[in-house]
Formats: sequence, structure tokens, C-alpha cells
Amino acid sequence: MCGIVGYIGDKKATPILINGLKKLEYRGYDSAGVATFDSNCINVIKCKGRLAALETKLTEDMPSANMGIGHTRWATHGEPNDVNSHPHISQSGRFAVVHNGIIENYIKLKDFLQTQGFEFKSETDTEVVAHLIEYHYKGDLIQAVIECVNDIEGSYALGVICSDCETQFVAARKDSPLIVGLGKNENFIASDIPAILEYTRDIYILEDKEIVSLTKDEVKVFNILGAEVKKEVYHVTWDATSAEKSGYEHFMMKEMFEEPKVIKDTLSPRIVDEGITLDNVNITAKDLENIDKIYIVACGTAYHAGVVGKYIIEKLARIPVEIDIASEFRYRDPLISDRNLVIIISQSGETLDTLVALKESKKRGAKTLSIVNVVGSSISRESDYVLYTWAGPEIAVASTKAYNTQLAALYLVAFNFAYKKGYIEDSAYKNYISQLKELPSKVEEVLKNKEVIQKFASKHYNAKSIFFIGRGLDYALSMEGSLKLKEISYIHSEAYAGGELKHGTIALIEKGTLVVCPVTQDDLIDKMVSNIREVKARGAVVMAITQEKNASIDKVADVVITIPDIDSLLAPVAAVTPLQLFAYYMAIEKGCDVDKPRNLAKSVTVE
Amino acid sequence: MCGIVGYIGDKKATPILINGLKKLEYRGYDSAGVATFDSNCINVIKCKGRLAALETKLTEDMPSANMGIGHTRWATHGEPNDVNSHPHISQSGRFAVVHNGIIENYIKLKDFLQTQGFEFKSETDTEVVAHLIEYHYKGDLIQAVIECVNDIEGSYALGVICSDCETQFVAARKDSPLIVGLGKNENFIASDIPAILEYTRDIYILEDKEIVSLTKDEVKVFNILGAEVKKEVYHVTWDATSAEKSGYEHFMMKEMFEEPKVIKDTLSPRIVDEGITLDNVNITAKDLENIDKIYIVACGTAYHAGVVGKYIIEKLARIPVEIDIASEFRYRDPLISDRNLVIIISQSGETLDTLVALKESKKRGAKTLSIVNVVGSSISRESDYVLYTWAGPEIAVASTKAYNTQLAALYLVAFNFAYKKGYIEDSAYKNYISQLKELPSKVEEVLKNKEVIQKFASKHYNAKSIFFIGRGLDYALSMEGSLKLKEISYIHSEAYAGGELKHGTIALIEKGTLVVCPVTQDDLIDKMVSNIREVKARGAVVMAITQEKNASIDKVADVVITIPDIDSLLAPVAAVTPLQLFAYYMAIEKGCDVDKPRNLAKSVTVE
Repeated sequence: MCGIVGYIGDKKATPILINGLKKLEYRGYDSAGVATFDSNCINVIKCKGRLAALETKLTEDMPSANMGIGHTRWATHGEPNDVNSHPHISQSGRFAVVHNGIIENYIKLKDFLQTQGFEFKSETDTEVVAHLIEYHYKGDLIQAVIECVNDIEGSYALGVICSDCETQFVAARKDSPLIVGLGKNENFIASDIPAILEYTRDIYILEDKEIVSLTKDEVKVFNILGAEVKKEVYHVTWDATSAEKSGYEHFMMKEMFEEPKVIKDTLSPRIVDEGITLDNVNITAKDLENIDKIYIVACGTAYHAGVVGKYIIEKLARIPVEIDIASEFRYRDPLISDRNLVIIISQSGETLDTLVALKESKKRGAKTLSIVNVVGSSISRESDYVLYTWAGPEIAVASTKAYNTQLAALYLVAFNFAYKKGYIEDSAYKNYISQLKELPSKVEEVLKNKEVIQKFASKHYNAKSIFFIGRGLDYALSMEGSLKLKEISYIHSEAYAGGELKHGTIALIEKGTLVVCPVTQDDLIDKMVSNIREVKARGAVVMAITQEKNASIDKVADVVITIPDIDSLLAPVAAVTPLQLFAYYMAIEKGCDVDKPRNLAKSVTVE
Repeated sequence: MCGIVGYIGDKKATPILINGLKKLEYRGYDSAGVATFDSNCINVIKCKGRLAALETKLTEDMPSANMGIGHTRWATHGEPNDVNSHPHISQSGRFAVVHNGIIENYIKLKDFLQTQGFEFKSETDTEVVAHLIEYHYKGDLIQAVIECVNDIEGSYALGVICSDCETQFVAARKDSPLIVGLGKNENFIASDIPAILEYTRDIYILEDKEIVSLTKDEVKVFNILGAEVKKEVYHVTWDATSAEKSGYEHFMMKEMFEEPKVIKDTLSPRIVDEGITLDNVNITAKDLENIDKIYIVACGTAYHAGVVGKYIIEKLARIPVEIDIASEFRYRDPLISDRNLVIIISQSGETLDTLVALKESKKRGAKTLSIVNVVGSSISRESDYVLYTWAGPEIAVASTKAYNTQLAALYLVAFNFAYKKGYIEDSAYKNYISQLKELPSKVEEVLKNKEVIQKFASKHYNAKSIFFIGRGLDYALSMEGSLKLKEISYIHSEAYAGGELKHGTIALIEKGTLVVCPVTQDDLIDKMVSNIREVKARGAVVMAITQEKNASIDKVADVVITIPDIDSLLAPVAAVTPLQLFAYYMAIEKGCDVDKPRNLAKSVTVE
């Protein structure tokens, strides 16, 4: 889950590395470091904490080298401290390595290297890579890296420099993202495109088990057997300024305010001639007849979008849908056949558990459809079909707009499949489509209401425990509302199905306990009102979210946040926004760093 | 969810009512009350709080009547206070009513009765029943009750007395349990058998929409049209002393110590000639070929048993299984066909959401198999097949031994189906069966370890938030461990899939946060060790539960609770016990009432 950058060229390497790492800090910010080639030896400067700490250290002692590698870390093995920070150097100091991923057999390798006289300084899995390269090195760095990656199991994106060689450095990847930036008299590696977008728009996207040699004039890519591979240049067309805050105090707020636009961007290219098209997703009515089950597999927020997906696809298209957490799915030997469609949801398209679930599903013969935000990401490239969410770069660690667009994509799929299967008629289909078109303006209305939520948050931010309770689609929404709050405010919150309250959670409700209730499902309102009465009878303070037409819920709830009138089936797209705003304001009131919550990173590319 | 009792005979009614209510206090204990017929008028004594409060009130003023009704309440409409307590009387004071259930159309009925001049004193739904009977009464109590129940929608068990009539009282039920006890010169009604077992073992089990008239010499049962119904007498054979504490401080501890015995009671009658039989469950290999999907539907602890069931049935019998919360299932228009088997799990056999899910499944053509503890309960009677868990009466509100036996029953089903489908061979089948037979002694070993857990609890009972983390079957276990703790200690705990940690929960981990990790799945141990390292790196204190052979996990966890070596597949049956003990000791250290946690009731017979 770390970020890595590498540079070789005519300019000074260090400022370029730092600049790139700043763009990658969303990938982790436990510690940071750089290694540069300086007067025939390797100079490593690294420290615990945010990148700013490293910058302070560097201003005192800025290396003048023209080649180097940098790293911003999210700890997996060993606590975040100076010693465990990257880059790691080998025994003799001749090799420095940055690494993103997990070396699964590192204990075995460490044992072996210790018998060969190598001494370990850190608790990390990465240090074995540095020593292993030294162990294999016979004067050819590329060859040593190839032999090293042949020995290791797990996932990696690696950058390696060697004190023998001023004019070349080497990188490699498997199951962790890495791109190469192609400049003029300079070349780059990075975990993600924004890190190098200031310098070049021409890139190579590396595939698994490719090893790359970079000099300032030349980039050569090799496969694991050492044979050279011909790569195509990918030209980046999007704009780096879209990753700026544009006057908002936080990326998260900016991204919530982008929701109307990105929902529209996701929906409108697929609504053509009053019908729904799904880009290159060529699943015909006949194909659908053959699909006896759909799996939706995802993690975190994307999983919560999937819970909504299950509900709407089953309801509309009458195909059984099973939703699963990717980390559970991949290990439970799921019953997948060639009559299944597996829908994979991921903002980054790099979520490791989700990626492995995708590969496993393909291996077992299922067709795969990914709903992904990042173009060219591993998941999008591995899937049979891709439906991109056009949410643009999402920088805040807590996902907001990406969730709304994931929902939008799932509605497109559900309506399209239902129509193809003949479960909705022309008139209903057109009606749903016209309601889809109204979603952006409805979310815009919701955003205007933000002060009511801010005021409520300012009274309740000291809450120790908060419960989110809903039924049906409102239960799916509750899960996402609870996760959002938890991620950025560190308040322990939990989502419960309304009917499960009495099977345990209600024991925790006492005078003043805050309970948040989305109540947007027409046929379940009475049941939810009963549940609200039950928690009120135990002293709870209740905030309800409902359509304007149900505003009379204020007779039972303490505060009611209204959203515009909207069909129950489509309500989640608009009703999630108040929950996101609530999480935001609670975190602000508590003084938390909303864009970079502690312990978390934007995309989870390790297990 | 309340308990009701009624008496008519030669003896004094009040002590018998109080005695009966004591046996029903597990059904709710927010408030209690009795109404008796005394010198031509009705005398109501009721108050907020436990039954003991009512007893104190009664010792000052003990009614001497020979007929009466009593009630112990679990609040659904209106907070627990004196006014909202049952019995409720009608406008004129001529009728008194006790009620268990929810009148769903009570607002409409209340509006109507108010136009007829009736004034309401309480916030309850029950009060409409009292007034409605008065409204319909033309001199015939049975007829008035029939007309009343024709007007009401929802669920009810009712007891009604009338000041016009010294020698008769009336009862009725729909969707809430009610039995009639047949004595000599005395007759009874009660929500459950133990309430009257001291006086008689002959009972009628009432069906939905039956109305019953009781005098001291005669019981007549009518249908909703007023026609008399012939009932069969059911003779209770089991012993009331099994519902005593037998020297343990709490029912919960007694029930945990019964686990080895009840697991054996559940398993051994079904293990015959080295094979598994499932009582009357006549599902043949050919039937199984026709089953393309199994649903498991349940609530609370039974739902968590179902999560284990999904995993083991899919893994062994290779039939797709979908697990669902009953309150969600019943409202989401699930895709059920006659090619589905629906497994329903409920300790009480009266859980309302689960019962409705069962009826809905049958209506849609599925076969139903219930795993139920209470013989003759509504769910057992409605199901096509029943597999009883022989756990005996469970009195503590937090379920322990019933969960272990639900698991035992699910293993029997999984192995039986897998063998019939040819997915396990004779030798593996015999091996699994011999392992099943060892389960009771393994749980016995676990119980011997209780002091280690007690010691750990005594250090950590002040924890504000606790996380349970597991993968695969250990995730299912984590859910149950978390619920148990929450129910009785009121500590906010939450279960997470290990892989989901980094998608949010880890933001809440700080120095000293307690994390409980079941680690019993051989193929997932490495992944869990990684997760433990991740939370340890953020300062967490970790208690792991694992097999003796994995005791070396103490290198990463702070405390390791070992269970005997046991196949990963069967581990939940033994590994849940330390989690139950942990919940128990945490609650004891906090001074909580473990057997009767606040706000909860034993069986949830309302929505």
C-alpha cells in the first residue's frame, strides 16, 4: 500500500522524488525516505512520520545526485519507525531498495540469508530483497533482480539502485502497481501516474513479472526469463489540476460537491435514445439466460455499493445475486461455474484481495465485469468487461463520490439486464431512465442542506458510540454511513438491520445514545418507525434521513434530514450524501485530519 | 415479547399468577401487573420494573380473588412506566386485558374509538383492545373478543376478564404463543409451559385465530367464526427442575457448563451404525439433486450459527447456500422456488420474523427444514422437516448452549448431505463422525480453562470498544463472540473480516484497544498473523483463540487461549466457548445482570 518513485536524468533527483511522493501520499504516510547515488556511494535519508518530516530533514542536507528512488510507507511488517522506513540497504551498502507489497516467504528467505552471514537491521519483509539482490549480484544488476524475484513469493513493486552503477537503475512488479514515465533525457518510475504527470504524459504500464532497466536515455523492459519485451506507449490525456482542492478546505468536501457532476458523467454517456447501453459490455439477452447467478465481490465502501447492487439486480432482473467480501471470497472455495457472472467493484482498480478474487473467478470459468474508476488499472485490464465510473481522481482516503458513481453504474446494469430479460416494460424502463437523469439535481439539493447536518454534528461530536439502523436498501446505506463516520472521526459506529436490534444491539442504547436512521423505503417506513420508537423508549437521540414527503417522521425522530422526493429504489444515490456530510462534520468538530485519517491508506494493495 | 398468565379455579389466583410470571420473566421484565376479579369489580395492580417490585406492592394488598390474569412486559409501544404497564382496562373499567404482540393498525383503531368517546390513558397499542372489546360487548364476552380480533391486524396473545362475569375468562392468539393448562377444578393460560408446569402437565397448544373460554371446570376452544374446535391434549413429559440454577451463580454459567452434555444429546441419537440419520428429515439423494440452492434464515445468535452453516454446507455438500437475516429476508421479495430448501434456525421456535420467513418460503414452494430447540413451537409445527437441538430450556437471555447445538445440528446436515451427494467417501465420512463424537470432551477441556479468561477479563473490563477479527469460519465465530459481549456487558464491540480491517476499522485501533482474534483455520493462520501484526503495530492488545498446536501464536498475540487440537472445519463448536466465557466474565466484572441484560428479552416474538 506504499508509494514509490524513481528518477534518472540530468536534473537533481531529490526535489523530483519529493514532489512525486507528495502526489502519492494518499497511498500511505507512516514514514518516508529517499536513496540517491552520490559520489560513488548510496546516500539514504529517511524518517518516521509524514513526508513533511522528511522534507525538513532534507533541507539541511539536500543530495545533489541525478538518480534516486523514494518511498512513502503504510506499515504492514514492523511498526512505523525510522529503521523500518524505506529505502532499505543491503549488508555492504551497495544496494538500496524501495518496495510496495508483501513478501510472503520472507521468514524462510531471512533464515537462509542469515546462514549466509547477512545481518538484519529492521523488522520489515523488504530488507530480505536488498540482501537477496546482493547475494545474487555478479556484476549485472538486471540479472540479480531477476534471480531475486524468482526467489520471492507475494506481491511487489520494486525500485533498486546500486553503487556500482551511476547510469542505470532497475524496477520490477507483480500484483502491485508500477508505471514507467518516459521523458526527454530523463526517465521515471512511479506507483501512480499523478506522481510524474508534471514531467511527462507518455508512460508504459508494466505487467506482472516484468523487470525494467532505466538509464536517462533509454528504458528496456524484460520478462522473467530475461528476454526483452516490446511495450506500447500510453499517452495520458487527463489533467493534473483535477487533483487539486479548488478552494475547498478538504479534498473530501470538494469530492462530495463533485457528486452531481460525476453521477451525470457516469450516467449520461450510457443513456442513448431513451435506452441504456453499457459501453463494451456485450452481454446479450441470450447470455443472460445462461447466467444462473451473479456474484458481486468487493471490499470496504465498494462492498457497500455491492450490497445495494445485490438488492436492485435481484429485484429488477430476477437473477440471484450473492455479495461477498473479497478477502473472504478468495479463501472460501466459492462455487463458481461458467454460468456465473462476477461483478468486481473497486475505485482504484488495484485492491489486491479484489484483484485476486477476479483472477480466481476467471480461472473457474465465470465471466467478469468490473466497475472501476481508474482507467488502465490492473482490475480493469484483467476483466472481460469494464464499466468505468467517471468519478475522476479521488484523493481523500474516505471514498465519497466514487461510491455514488458505483451505485449509478450498478443501476445501469440492473435496468439494462431487467429490460433485456423482459422484466420491465418499455414505459417503466423509460420512467426509470428519466428518474436516473434527475439524480444529479437531487444530490445538488441535498448538498444545499449541509448546514442542518453541520449544526447537528456540532452538538453530538463527543458521542462515544453511534448506531446506524435501516431496513432493506436503508440497511445497505447504514453500512456505508457507519464506515464513513468510523474512518474519519474514529467514533465507534456500527450498522444494524432494523429487525436485528432486539437481538442484541438494543442493550447498548441508553439515555443520549445517538442513532442514525435512513428511512427511504416506502414499504418499510412503518417498521422503521416502530424501531425508532423502541430506541427512543430507551432514551436514544435519533437523526432520520427521509424524503420530503415523509417529513412527518419528525413526530418520532429528534432531527429529520430531508432529501427530495425520489423513488425508494433509487434513494440510496441521494440519501448517502447526508451520511457522508455527517461523517465529515463530526470529524471536523473533533479536529481530525479528514483527508488522511490515521492508519488508513487510499487503496489497499496488500492483504 | 411479553409473558402472560391466566388462572381460574378454587385457589387464590394472585400467588399462582406471580409464580407463573416468574417462570416467564425471561420473556421481558420492563414492568409487570395483575388484574383479578374481586367482589364484582376488577382490581388492577401494576408497576414499572422487575416482577419483584410488583411482589412488594402485592404483599401490602394481596387480592383474594379466584380468577385473574398477569403480565410481564417488554416494551414495544411507549416507554416502560406504570401507566404503560399491563393489564389495561377499558373506559368503564369493566374489561381488563393482557397482551403479547403488536397491534399494527392501532392508530387507525384509536382514531375511530376516540370518535366514539373513548379516552386513552397510555401510549400502548394494547389499550385499543380493551376499549374495542367494550365497544363490541353486548353481553357475550366470547362474541365481543371474536369481533375485536376481527378488527385488529398484527400479532397477539390475549387474556381478557370482565367484571360482569365471575366464572369465566377468555383468551385468544395469533402469531404470539399461548397454551392452555388443563387442571382439576382449575384451568390456566400461559405464554409458555414452565409457567404452569407446577400445576398440570396436560395442555392444549392453541393455533392462530383460536379463541378460548375458560371456567374452572371447562375449556372450550372456538375458531374465528365462533364454531367450537376439538383440541388434542398434549402431555408434557419433561422436568421443570431442568430450569433451575443447580448451584451455579447464573443460568448463563450453568448453561455453558451443560454444553458438553447437550452437544452429545444432539449428536448421539443421530449417529447410528457409523452413519448419520436426520430423524424424520426424509431428504434423499434424489431430492438433493433437485435442490439447486439452500437458504438459511435466522436472527441474532441463530443467524451466526447459520453463517457457519453456509460455509460448511457449501464446502462439504457443494450446494450454494445463501444466509439471510429473517427481518431482511421477509421484505426483500427473495427469489425462492420449489428447487430451494430453506433452513430455519431458532432456539425458541417463536421468533416472529423467522416464522414469517418460513411461511413465506413455503408459500413460494420451497421445502423447509427447521433447527429448533422448543418442541411443539410454532416454527417446528409449520416446517416440513424438523431437526431438534436437544439443548433443554435456555433461561439466560444470552444464548450459549443453544448455539453450540445449532452448530452440531448443522454439521449433521452438512455431512449427511455431502455423503448422500457423493462428495465425501466412506473413510472421510467415518473420520468426520468420529471427530463429531469427540466434540463434547473437547468442549469440556475448554471449560477447564476458564480461569485464564477470567483473569484476562479482570484486567480489561473497562474497555470502551472491542474488536473481533477473524477469517472464514473464524469470522463467523467473531460475529457471535461480539454479539455475546455486547448483549451482556454493554461494551460496544464489533466483528470484522480480517481482510476488511484496512478498509476502515483499523482507524479506530489505538494504544490499548482490545482485539479478540479466533485463529483456528489452518490455511488462514498466516493471513491472521499478518492482521495481528498490523493491529499490534498500532498499539492493540490482542487475545487470540487457537488450537494447542498453534500455541506459538503467543509470539505475536498478548494472550493466547488454547482449545484442544481439532480439525479447522469443526473448530467453531469448541472455539465459541472461550468467547462466551469472555463475555460472561467481562459482564461480571462490570457488575451487570448477566442473565437478564437491560432492554433484551429471550425470544423476540414481535418485529
